[in-house]
Amino acid sequence: MDAEIARQRYEREHDPSRVLALTDGVVAIIITLLVLEIHVPQLSNGESLKAALQEVRPSFFAFFISFVVVAISWAGHRDLFALIRRTDRLLVWLNVLYLLPLCIIPFGASMLARYEDAAIALQMYGALLLAVAATRLCIWWYATGRPHLLHEPIDAPSRRAGVWIVVGPAAAYLAAILVAEPLPRVSRLIYGVVPAAYFVLVWRLRHSAPPDAAERDFT
Amino acid sequence: MDAEIARQRYEREHDPSRVLALTDGVVAIIITLLVLEIHVPQLSNGESLKAALQEVRPSFFAFFISFVVVAISWAGHRDLFALIRRTDRLLVWLNVLYLLPLCIIPFGASMLARYEDAAIALQMYGALLLAVAATRLCIWWYATGRPHLLHEPIDAPSRRAGVWIVVGPAAAYLAAILVAEPLPRVSRLIYGVVPAAYFVLVWRLRHSAPPDAAERDFT
Amino acid sequence: MDAEIARQRYEREHDPSRVLALTDGVVAIIITLLVLEIHVPQLSNGESLKAALQEVRPSFFAFFISFVVVAISWAGHRDLFALIRRTDRLLVWLNVLYLLPLCIIPFGASMLARYEDAAIALQMYGALLLAVAATRLCIWWYATGRPHLLHEPIDAPSRRAGVWIVVGPAAAYLAAILVAEPLPRVSRLIYGVVPAAYFVLVWRLRHSAPPDAAERDFT
Amino acid sequence: MDAEIARQRYEREHDPSRVLALTDGVVAIIITLLVLEIHVPQLSNGESLKAALQEVRPSFFAFFISFVVVAISWAGHRDLFALIRRTDRLLVWLNVLYLLPLCIIPFGASMLARYEDAAIALQMYGALLLAVAATRLCIWWYATGRPHLLHEPIDAPSRRAGVWIVVGPAAAYLAAILVAEPLPRVSRLIYGVVPAAYFVLVWRLRHSAPPDAAERDFT
Repeated sequence: MDAEIARQRYEREHDPSRVLALTDGVVAIIITLLVLEIHVPQLSNGESLKAALQEVRPSFFAFFISFVVVAISWAGHRDLFALIRRTDRLLVWLNVLYLLPLCIIPFGASMLARYEDAAIALQMYGALLLAVAATRLCIWWYATGRPHLLHEPIDAPSRRAGVWIVVGPAAAYLAAILVAEPLPRVSRLIYGVVPAAYFVLVWRLRHSAPPDAAERDFT
Repeated sequence: MDAEIARQRYEREHDPSRVLALTDGVVAIIITLLVLEIHVPQLSNGESLKAALQEVRPSFFAFFISFVVVAISWAGHRDLFALIRRTDRLLVWLNVLYLLPLCIIPFGASMLARYEDAAIALQMYGALLLAVAATRLCIWWYATGRPHLLHEPIDAPSRRAGVWIVVGPAAAYLAAILVAEPLPRVSRLIYGVVPAAYFVLVWRLRHSAPPDAAERDFT
Repeated sequence: MDAEIARQRYEREHDPSRVLALTDGVVAIIITLLVLEIHVPQLSNGESLKAALQEVRPSFFAFFISFVVVAISWAGHRDLFALIRRTDRLLVWLNVLYLLPLCIIPFGASMLARYEDAAIALQMYGALLLAVAATRLCIWWYATGRPHLLHEPIDAPSRRAGVWIVVGPAAAYLAAILVAEPLPRVSRLIYGVVPAAYFVLVWRLRHSAPPDAAERDFT
Repeated sequence: MDAEIARQRYEREHDPSRVLALTDGVVAIIITLLVLEIHVPQLSNGESLKAALQEVRPSFFAFFISFVVVAISWAGHRDLFALIRRTDRLLVWLNVLYLLPLCIIPFGASMLARYEDAAIALQMYGALLLAVAATRLCIWWYATGRPHLLHEPIDAPSRRAGVWIVVGPAAAYLAAILVAEPLPRVSRLIYGVVPAAYFVLVWRLRHSAPPDAAERDFT
């Protein structure tokens, strides 16, 4: 009976539900706040509204890629926590660390919207995406390596698959940072294209995996 | 036993709860952010506060119709997910796609508040509402056609009913876009009236449906 | 068996959980957005920061009373939904209607912060609080009168108690609106004092109620 | 049977789930709103973007320490409510009181970002952190002293441990307030360093506690 009480207490203290609630809340707010960075254009004399809207095109680009990147981060988080049964202290804090660069993305998007050809804006945006990737990698590697946190153990190839779908885009973002100075347009193109590449990558992983593998259910 | 473990894992990975949490969060934020677009009027010399408030009337109009449209979208989402037992990868992403135009509505409302007679502001607002309708249609059609995602199969007339309550208002919004250039006031009137028409439409559907039909519980 | 399936479906379609999720989300955002209306003072030449902070005092007043009013609305909503087992279509929409004036409170607070002695700002704020009270009354009266929506029937005195704790403050807000023109300071005083009076009122209700009454657990 | 009904009603009315939903929502919004205070720098003539970014350094500092402080508050709240089984009226309101200074932190961070060397900005920020600590202490002491609200009683040393991890940082914040006038840089340094000290403190508490103590699971 005492053992049962101790077990219940252990489960309560390692229950991931509030970590999920916080993460879902933060993601919901980020994707909604992003639109606040698209400012209604001011019409100066003799300028048509259409021309003015043309001015907000960079804002829409920054909004759109940020929306997709944050949605991918959320879907990846959901995939991971479908495997996780319990949290521990470090997992809670790694999750907070994961939310940190995500929370700064609206600022990065704002910079990109305002100075779309400035190398530093492109580099800062890339650095944020790299930080999201790095922290996502930390949570994934930490949690999947601790069977007592999982519903069932995960095998080594699936763990590696979870790494590749993060490292692949991250490598592309690194390239975008490196070419930002000489070729800002190429850098911007990379930010626009990588999310699409991500979907292809996940699709391939799902279809080449053995029937039981965790990556068959990657979102 | 292994089959039971596999089944539990399947349910975990297809659990819709986080999709609901994200959607409720996004809707809650949108309807609350909308009010930020109503700016406290600046009193210039010799102007009464009442006159200044008159100036924010367009903001209130945009706020109010956007609030109702987003609330209807949420209620429709709730109706659909009362039928859904499991998600799959595509449903998760269709849901994200549904949130995309919803998240842009505060910007559309802002445009409308600022330039209430400009055709392009009215057209952009209508385009957003059409995009919400189109993505809502996609989720509805996709999910209701896949019995393994549902608590129980839905019959063909109910599926069509779920289409009509989206297509009806969407047709009106299309009309509002088409008349925005020559008759901006008519366009605005349509945006104001359609939500009311929606409630009448749902009421009729509920009362003309056979006793067991899913549409009897449309909100 | 068919009856069991029909019953489960009925429960699913009348489940209040998403109504609660939306309401908690909206309340969380409102009380957090309110602080955005407190602007960091601009230091002009020769002005001390302390003097500048003095300028934001009206913002703090508007923030504080709005925070308390919204928190009271949330606590009342929580009390009501502790009694409610199922929603129906009208209850869902009454709840959305309840959120409408709540969502406008940040704008009302902004007006009050900017024009603290203007009758129209005080009246508008009072009108919002009256609208919150009126919609809260509607939900309370509607739900408590429908035993199939409740965990257990509620007796007439408890229903009336739930009315008085809303009508009492509402009467005071009406008075605040009426005196706003001649006595703006009295009006402001009422807005500041009523929340405190509310706590006393609830305390009295709790302690004068018979042991089983629902109002013994009003928050 | 009647006793069973009364018990179920009691549990419903003292269910902490909505208190958690509100708190998670508020925390999610605060940490996401904080970034809105980091404004995209305006490039004046002949100024490089890098130099302009240098100007937003104080904003980043205020953002970062606020993010960590709010995350710690959330983790502490999660630890406490892992022990709590039921709320009562006072606990609900103490929790609202706890959210009040948390909600003002974005304003405090804004002040700090704008006037990083002004004593009053540093003192106000410290006062907010002290208020968070004081209200956290109230909830902790109130709840842990009422066994009927807890899953299981908590022993006196664990209760005191929960006090120390709040009082320790609070003492440092008090020092930061006191030295803000003569030594603003030291004050700022304290705000930056205390969160790190907090982690060390929790680590020590966890490892020096007896095997069964509640503080072994402090986050």
